[in-house]
Amino acid sequence: VSAVPVPTLANSVRFDGDVVEILDRRVFPFERRWVTCRTVEDVAVAIEQMVTQSSGPLFAATAGLVLAAHDAATTPDAASARARLHQAGARLVRTRPTNNHIRDGVAGVLAAVDTHPDADPARLVDVVTAAALAQETHYRRSSDELGRHAAALLPEGARVLTHCWADLYLVGLVSAALRDGKRLEFLCTETRPYLQGARLTAETLGEMGFTPTVLTDNMPAWAMQQGMVDAVVTAADRVTMDGHVVNKVGTLQIAVSAHAFGIPFHALVQSPDPQAPSISDVVIEQRDGDESLHALGMRTASTYAVGVYPAFDATPPRYVTDVATDRGVFAPDRLADYLTAPDPLQELT
Amino acid sequence: VSAVPVPTLANSVRFDGDVVEILDRRVFPFERRWVTCRTVEDVAVAIEQMVTQSSGPLFAATAGLVLAAHDAATTPDAASARARLHQAGARLVRTRPTNNHIRDGVAGVLAAVDTHPDADPARLVDVVTAAALAQETHYRRSSDELGRHAAALLPEGARVLTHCWADLYLVGLVSAALRDGKRLEFLCTETRPYLQGARLTAETLGEMGFTPTVLTDNMPAWAMQQGMVDAVVTAADRVTMDGHVVNKVGTLQIAVSAHAFGIPFHALVQSPDPQAPSISDVVIEQRDGDESLHALGMRTASTYAVGVYPAFDATPPRYVTDVATDRGVFAPDRLADYLTAPDPLQELT
Repeated sequence: VSAVPVPTLANSVRFDGDVVEILDRRVFPFERRWVTCRTVEDVAVAIEQMVTQSSGPLFAATAGLVLAAHDAATTPDAASARARLHQAGARLVRTRPTNNHIRDGVAGVLAAVDTHPDADPARLVDVVTAAALAQETHYRRSSDELGRHAAALLPEGARVLTHCWADLYLVGLVSAALRDGKRLEFLCTETRPYLQGARLTAETLGEMGFTPTVLTDNMPAWAMQQGMVDAVVTAADRVTMDGHVVNKVGTLQIAVSAHAFGIPFHALVQSPDPQAPSISDVVIEQRDGDESLHALGMRTASTYAVGVYPAFDATPPRYVTDVATDRGVFAPDRLADYLTAPDPLQELT
Repeated sequence: VSAVPVPTLANSVRFDGDVVEILDRRVFPFERRWVTCRTVEDVAVAIEQMVTQSSGPLFAATAGLVLAAHDAATTPDAASARARLHQAGARLVRTRPTNNHIRDGVAGVLAAVDTHPDADPARLVDVVTAAALAQETHYRRSSDELGRHAAALLPEGARVLTHCWADLYLVGLVSAALRDGKRLEFLCTETRPYLQGARLTAETLGEMGFTPTVLTDNMPAWAMQQGMVDAVVTAADRVTMDGHVVNKVGTLQIAVSAHAFGIPFHALVQSPDPQAPSISDVVIEQRDGDESLHALGMRTASTYAVGVYPAFDATPPRYVTDVATDRGVFAPDRLADYLTAPDPLQELT
């Protein structure tokens, strides 16, 4: 059995203790450019400007907290060091509101900090570094677990339609399928305006040995009608406890179309969000509408046009077949069961 | 009452008797470049290469037949002149198979030619010129009629979602609304890969006094869910007698989404096609898949990706609210009534 290839984007945040380097997903794979961040503010701006997205902000934010811990080590006492770390965490959480990775990753690191209320500021660097690494390890293991559960949902030979970029969840799913010798094919939506599907998903699947077919965002229902799609699989940036799947804008119409054509829609998320009982608890990020009037920096629309860019949409549970998590697969109306299901990562928490 | 503005694209084929000049829709409105055609072959290649599309090929093809008539005027006898014109017509009809404008426009001109079987080859130039002009006049009048019927379907203040570029049908609809003092707002899909919505529709609506909102192709269902859309209006390249609407790929998922959100979908076509009793009678053009991997000539997808480009899709009648034609509005299961309805353009035929 040959080893499962590790794609470039599985390691897109580098940290050497002094600087955080983030692979610029805005230009990948056409350019392999790394953005260097020396402060928490640098990291926050990089996240806001979409240098990285999906899982990238979790890794960047927790590494950013290590930068903040180095900075806080120069403060005179434990209380001011902790205050500075909490400020840094709040800045990072403010960057993007919809996905809960940053919120939960930052909260995990700050919880570790708060268990050492009297620690010397310099000592907190070790605490934060260890907690950041634990967050990363947990995130990767959780993604592998959910990927394994998601792969099991797909029949041998399945032709899978993806939307946007499911990041380590997709890598986990594909790795599990490759380990099991299950054959899959992929159609990827282009995903305007940032082209995450055409660039990130297609490149990663290519690196892992597939030849993905890229569809522009107006083609999913056509492909379904033609019998080219056996299953739709997307990540979710957030899943509410009542089964709404919040993900890249366009997921909704793909799910509606899949429902119309009798094709299952599987959403991937590590965990439904206990802090979001219903969709009204989720802030949908509205980005600058001008982004929808450009592609790769080039103007694509008439100068008479105004743009909108809702980064995400919310798919109601009636269009969701199931949700694959790190504790197994749940129907959208049974997500509360996640909270009491056995946690395979318990030893990490 | 101020005059209704005439947008640039309402006159995008120019003919001076010797050359046909076609406004290049691949770069409009960013560049105003005209492609010069001196032969029928030049015109055919321009149509195949998407220099013009929608109504453009009708005007270009009938003008191309005038070029062919000039060429045929040098032949020794009536039979060879007519044969050459029929060859020219066949070449033009082969360019693109899905829209029936070229087929019907060419057939109309050739029918005029065939009513003069013994005409001197030089005399046929006048016959073809008059017939080409008659085709154009009929096409414009028919578009105005259907636009008037379509405008009447829309409530005052309606927020209208369009897809791709409805060309003279849209100009007819908007002109009728402006004449009646009816206020409308427009959301236009971008329409990858050629961006017809972002470029042609948005520019034309801007020229006519509107500020269109451009949505990327993954946003229509989101906009519907947000309550931003009162009606969906698209042209149809073909409507079969059993109510299938063949139009730019993406129409299907917009119609499916509109159905899910209880929003009417109005299709615009001059006439259902009596030569297409059902969808199996329509050839859906498959263009080079590489076109879907580029935007405005720039590569947008991973080099691992392969593309597909079905230029059109077919929306089944259950998702079609009604079809506005030049003889009025018909339910998708009552299109046969069109054939016996009074023809407002009878004096032209």
